[in-house]
Amino acid sequence: MRIEIICTGDEVLTGKIVNSNFSYISQKLEDFGLSLTWETTVGDDRESLLQAFQLAGQRADAVIVNGGLGPTVDDLSQEIAAKAAGVELALNEEWLATMEAYFMKRARVMPPNNKKQAMLPAGAEVLDNPIGTACGFAVNIGKARFFFTPGVPRELRRMLEEQIVPRLLAKAGKQTAVFLKRFHSYGIGESHADTLLAGVEALVPDGSVKLGFRAHYPQLETKLTARGVDMDDIRRKLAPVEAEVRKRFGNFIMAEDDRTLEGVILSELEKCQGTLTIVESFTSGQVVGRVAHLPGAEKIVRRGIVARELSEVCAAVGLNIVPAAITKEAAEAVAHAALAHTKTTHSLVVLVDLDEGADRVEFAGTVCLAIATANKIESRRSRIVGGRDWVRLGAVEMGLDCLRRYLQGLPVNERIDFEKVE
Amino acid sequence: MRIEIICTGDEVLTGKIVNSNFSYISQKLEDFGLSLTWETTVGDDRESLLQAFQLAGQRADAVIVNGGLGPTVDDLSQEIAAKAAGVELALNEEWLATMEAYFMKRARVMPPNNKKQAMLPAGAEVLDNPIGTACGFAVNIGKARFFFTPGVPRELRRMLEEQIVPRLLAKAGKQTAVFLKRFHSYGIGESHADTLLAGVEALVPDGSVKLGFRAHYPQLETKLTARGVDMDDIRRKLAPVEAEVRKRFGNFIMAEDDRTLEGVILSELEKCQGTLTIVESFTSGQVVGRVAHLPGAEKIVRRGIVARELSEVCAAVGLNIVPAAITKEAAEAVAHAALAHTKTTHSLVVLVDLDEGADRVEFAGTVCLAIATANKIESRRSRIVGGRDWVRLGAVEMGLDCLRRYLQGLPVNERIDFEKVE
Repeated sequence: MRIEIICTGDEVLTGKIVNSNFSYISQKLEDFGLSLTWETTVGDDRESLLQAFQLAGQRADAVIVNGGLGPTVDDLSQEIAAKAAGVELALNEEWLATMEAYFMKRARVMPPNNKKQAMLPAGAEVLDNPIGTACGFAVNIGKARFFFTPGVPRELRRMLEEQIVPRLLAKAGKQTAVFLKRFHSYGIGESHADTLLAGVEALVPDGSVKLGFRAHYPQLETKLTARGVDMDDIRRKLAPVEAEVRKRFGNFIMAEDDRTLEGVILSELEKCQGTLTIVESFTSGQVVGRVAHLPGAEKIVRRGIVARELSEVCAAVGLNIVPAAITKEAAEAVAHAALAHTKTTHSLVVLVDLDEGADRVEFAGTVCLAIATANKIESRRSRIVGGRDWVRLGAVEMGLDCLRRYLQGLPVNERIDFEKVE
Repeated sequence: MRIEIICTGDEVLTGKIVNSNFSYISQKLEDFGLSLTWETTVGDDRESLLQAFQLAGQRADAVIVNGGLGPTVDDLSQEIAAKAAGVELALNEEWLATMEAYFMKRARVMPPNNKKQAMLPAGAEVLDNPIGTACGFAVNIGKARFFFTPGVPRELRRMLEEQIVPRLLAKAGKQTAVFLKRFHSYGIGESHADTLLAGVEALVPDGSVKLGFRAHYPQLETKLTARGVDMDDIRRKLAPVEAEVRKRFGNFIMAEDDRTLEGVILSELEKCQGTLTIVESFTSGQVVGRVAHLPGAEKIVRRGIVARELSEVCAAVGLNIVPAAITKEAAEAVAHAALAHTKTTHSLVVLVDLDEGADRVEFAGTVCLAIATANKIESRRSRIVGGRDWVRLGAVEMGLDCLRRYLQGLPVNERIDFEKVE
């Protein structure tokens, strides 16, 4: 089945806003085993819109149009959809009533120009929007079924998932139950992960489980898309594959599905009634900045200390003897001192010794980190290459992931793909 | 002149990477008074590429194609360009020599498949790429001039600016000298800025200076695009408009052109041989994280202290009497204590008192900030509405901008558009 997307709006066309709706829709289709063949962006311009609709209607089986459903004069999607479909615009009484109820619930009077949002091409199928006033709809143009969606991201997302994906799956003749299982890992590169997981799809011989990746350095998201007749069927199919992914990735899995590394750290600390101090140098607040602002962190992340110079780091935690250089031992000494100084149960110390020289791809830094409680200390030394930003991002992630490993009783020194072996 | 963009590549089409090249090209064209009418994204697929090239060649006068110039088998741009233009691929000896020199300079042997990058449609005009091996080129397809560009962002950007924009301006019959003047401000919303600057374009009656905005909350970028016969002409035209923008925006301008708020702060502190301590609560490291990692900051930003609870903030700076609540006076007391405790010349304190309740658009927080030196203290209280993330971003920017104002001897208490008046 050929699917196309048409994005509309001057703000998108002129680059004033980055078109994240497009990548969202495209990813979501991939997740459901559907795929996109063509994308078009045009502005709020009658002639371009009409031409884009007609061309897509000749090429595709299904087209998702995003934007242009608002109440203002430059929102043209309904008008041009009607023209391209060769029908008139007609007032949809049902949607008008829905909108009036929407405003009444919010104790507001509906502005008269919102009525425009209930004018749909005659015969259009309504796609419900439970969280906004822009009515989605479906019509046929040329040989394709067109699905019109609002530009507001949260409205689009909900409509796509609840209304459009099921219709597309039905149209494609696919079993309609689909489930996406996700694993978040740190330390395994995408091509290495692909090799590690070779053959896992084949554990379900009928091909209904599909493996995919999305890398956002330094994290990797591993996705299993499973299809079946219902959720029980899916769970049965997915179980052996999930188990195998967990086995092969082992300690590298930080979190699954909607959970995050930060969330896992906070809940582990909460479980043991722990409190945390974070001490960092070159990462300059970006380790503590990942966790301390989260709801629930206010009782757990008690203190963050940032200093660029080792002598300042030591002064900040009341350590009188300043080590000669940034080493694992120095990080350990700071971690011990931080516990005593701030009276928390846990401390995480991330120190970075940057190489000299210009900021190029070959530029590297040495990360020395330590995690301490009253009874146990762990530390790690690692070289990261790739320029200042890369070193900084890598050090932040390594610090947080080693803390996660420490809290879960896992080794903090497992080799990762992003460090340089010396 | 009708200009189109064609983005190519499976990674872009499937949403694996967000297409920031597109918005970059589109913005850049706008900056030069050129504008885009249509954008198409297709994958690494011969049939789609050919069709996309042919359609754009029928509609447009100029087309910029991005991606597909690499050495691997799925890089198809040259091959399909030749087919669409009705010519053969031919080895460009000059580019082959350029590539060989490129590898030699880096003491590497050119892999054989890189030779593919010197195969161009016969008669194509070469667009130089001084920082990569992908050769840009221009050919005619249909009635349009096509410009083929590499997918690597820094290579694209340089080629666009140095090679393509001048050709487009010449093709459009525009005076070729163009200059973009930029102002970065914080505290004035886009529509307010538009009102404030009403009429500034008219100071140059021939219409050669154009005003535009780009908002990236909480900062606003104000752009003046000026065209003229040469740079002297442009400077003469721009001078009165620039002066007027500076006058109307006044203290709200943080930096101009490539300078940044962070850079201005660091250079002001360097000028007075100052050292800085930053103390923050809910922003949790995100104030210090904006400046401390920058080159040159290691001698200036001496200490960052993060704590969520006011009692912890006080403990961290050795303040024995804990204020009852987060107020301007509390922030001032912490700022004084921080100076004494860390022995820096300057301290910036950003404390946030979050409202109770769920995180919705109506959710607000109170920011109390203070900046101190041995002789002078300034402070500010402000209410920010818009949900947890909005409050956090607003507090970070307000803290840094007030520090900039303090260092430049400007009032830190000027009212901004993003705060709630009580």
